[in-house]
Amino acid sequence: MTAELLFVGTELLLGQTLNTNAQYLSGRLAASGVNVFHQTVVGDNQPRVEACIRTALGRADVLIVSGGLGPTSDDLTKEAAAAVLGRRLLPDGASRAAIEGYFAAVGRRMTENNLKQALIPEGGEAIPNPNGTAPGIKIQDGSKLVFLLPGPPSEFEPMVEAAVIPALGAMQPGGQTIVSRVLRFCGIGESELETRLNDLISAQSGTTVAPLASLGEVAIRLTAKAESEAAARARIAPVEELIRARLGRYLYGTDQESLPGVVVRLLAERRLTLALAESCTGGLLADQLTDIPGASAVLLAGVVAYTGQAKAGLLAIPRESVSEYGPVSEQVCSAMARNVRRISGADLGIGITCVAGPGGGSAKTPVGLAFIGLAHGPGDGVRVARRVFRGSRRVVKCRAAKQALVMLRDRLLGQEDSSGH
Amino acid sequence: MTAELLFVGTELLLGQTLNTNAQYLSGRLAASGVNVFHQTVVGDNQPRVEACIRTALGRADVLIVSGGLGPTSDDLTKEAAAAVLGRRLLPDGASRAAIEGYFAAVGRRMTENNLKQALIPEGGEAIPNPNGTAPGIKIQDGSKLVFLLPGPPSEFEPMVEAAVIPALGAMQPGGQTIVSRVLRFCGIGESELETRLNDLISAQSGTTVAPLASLGEVAIRLTAKAESEAAARARIAPVEELIRARLGRYLYGTDQESLPGVVVRLLAERRLTLALAESCTGGLLADQLTDIPGASAVLLAGVVAYTGQAKAGLLAIPRESVSEYGPVSEQVCSAMARNVRRISGADLGIGITCVAGPGGGSAKTPVGLAFIGLAHGPGDGVRVARRVFRGSRRVVKCRAAKQALVMLRDRLLGQEDSSGH
Repeated sequence: MTAELLFVGTELLLGQTLNTNAQYLSGRLAASGVNVFHQTVVGDNQPRVEACIRTALGRADVLIVSGGLGPTSDDLTKEAAAAVLGRRLLPDGASRAAIEGYFAAVGRRMTENNLKQALIPEGGEAIPNPNGTAPGIKIQDGSKLVFLLPGPPSEFEPMVEAAVIPALGAMQPGGQTIVSRVLRFCGIGESELETRLNDLISAQSGTTVAPLASLGEVAIRLTAKAESEAAARARIAPVEELIRARLGRYLYGTDQESLPGVVVRLLAERRLTLALAESCTGGLLADQLTDIPGASAVLLAGVVAYTGQAKAGLLAIPRESVSEYGPVSEQVCSAMARNVRRISGADLGIGITCVAGPGGGSAKTPVGLAFIGLAHGPGDGVRVARRVFRGSRRVVKCRAAKQALVMLRDRLLGQEDSSGH
Repeated sequence: MTAELLFVGTELLLGQTLNTNAQYLSGRLAASGVNVFHQTVVGDNQPRVEACIRTALGRADVLIVSGGLGPTSDDLTKEAAAAVLGRRLLPDGASRAAIEGYFAAVGRRMTENNLKQALIPEGGEAIPNPNGTAPGIKIQDGSKLVFLLPGPPSEFEPMVEAAVIPALGAMQPGGQTIVSRVLRFCGIGESELETRLNDLISAQSGTTVAPLASLGEVAIRLTAKAESEAAARARIAPVEELIRARLGRYLYGTDQESLPGVVVRLLAERRLTLALAESCTGGLLADQLTDIPGASAVLLAGVVAYTGQAKAGLLAIPRESVSEYGPVSEQVCSAMARNVRRISGADLGIGITCVAGPGGGSAKTPVGLAFIGLAHGPGDGVRVARRVFRGSRRVVKCRAAKQALVMLRDRLLGQEDSSGH
């Protein structure tokens, strides 16, 4: 079975939007064993959208279109699909009720053009959109299956999971299934990881071992294809075992697991609580942890204390310490971790202070210099890591937050050396 | 003049790589006045690459291909282009010398397959690659111009600047320049915005007015084409003026400006300071504000207080209030905003409390219910907005943080009604 992807939107052709839907959907289809040979991007122009739909239906079994389902006159994906498939657009009562319900729930006024979103090509099936107003649409046309999905990723991704992947899985009797498994590492650099797995990466075995690089993340994807999901998993298992034997201590999670998710889980399993005192990361670490459902049970408190006044008022750090050692110093970092732990009554305390840049650096405290402290144990001891991160303000914030997560994970697993590289 | 973009690489079809080249090149071509109607992604398969090249040359004047120039047997963009254009691949002495020099410089051993990268289609011109081994290639074929560029962004982007943009500029004697300007709005829904600008969106004037939708953002793009950048800007100006006259109070910024950036700027201009008390948003608002250089001068402190204990300890909110009214209530929200302002000595205080989900909702306080409070003025008054947001945990967090930014902006501009819709 082959699928083809079509992304509709002039903002993509003008470079105003990064097409993350392409990567998301491609990854999910590959994981489901669906072949994709072409992806196309086209603007908000009905004749061109129609031509792209015709071409795609001529070479693939399944067409998935993203974008162009909004309420405005620019949005014409449904019109184009209806024209190519020779169907009328008809009002769909359930979709209209859902749109009206959406506006009532958020307390906004619905305008007449939102009702355009409740039109469905004849014989099509609406896919509910819990995160927006445009329903998705599924149309069976002879042997071809067409999905029309909204462009915003927060609406697109849930519909891919809820409607596209299950439908395509049901269409593959006895086909080959591709299974991918991602192993995620922390506390080890990308090139060291690659060097230590080089024999597996080069091997032409039934399981592909490929490094996946993205900002501050080190991961490996294992992929195998077989007649069933179980058979593909059985091919992957021994390779994963080998990698775990070599690099297990750096492996923090698999597949969609995230480092904040692992830290929240480890804290919950151990019934431990955490408090954060952030300076340069400015709430980023708290934000990452509170993205995880259940974080409220383990994260007692967070303090964002940029200024000396806030460090004194909220964290009881004497102004004299800040002036003596400087706000970006091991001493202030220690005091932040220790005091936020004590004030909140948490089991573990984190303190982060750094020079995020772009300004504010000096010879003694250059942009990127970071201290990350972890207060734990029966005494008042704080373990402080000193790092210098390269990159933009956002990158420095992300790396400092990540270092704190690595230290928390190591501590919770009782292996305190893996981050000391 | 129209250009078409072709991205070659199975890693794109499998979702292992995010296609940032597409956005980069599209943005540069739009700014240079080159029309792009189609972008295609295809895998490392020679017949399919050849078919895509043929299709593109059938409908565009310029074809720009990215990817498939590496040293491995998977890399076959040159082979495909040579086949379609009926040319042989010939060794290029300068490219070979450059590749040998590159390996000498980085101290790595050159392998035999790297010499494949020094082959150039007959009549083509090598484009030097200072950042890697694969030269780019430029081929004039009758009236058509073809560029073959390497896929890694660190090699691709410099070649776009050095070779593609100048060549296309030279092809446009007295050519047209496209200028885009984005107007960003808050406190107004997308469809209401469109309703109020419908006449301009439909008008076939020299300036295109198009809505741009993304998560929680409402924006309009104005685009004009003219013989010079100044002439294009002159076309946009009166349309922008008209939109400002109608919707100026909702317009918070233009082009790359962000709402947190505007709030930090307004605070700095007015020499006012801010403190935050976040519950459900868990530090997200502090994180967004501290992404802005200079935030440290205006953001005195932030507190992330999920638990009753943290609300009592860090924000001096009596436990009885929390149990009487519930943690997600107008009363607790008010107290959070008022107390964080008082404790930190800031001019403005924000309190946010909501049910982010997915669990934890009840009939009285459903998932998505949010209170956002702004404490300001000489007394102890707090203005509290009650909202219900739909969507995932992350979406609820983002919308609640955005509402706080909208209220801050309104207050700083002295127009307190625009968010009260």
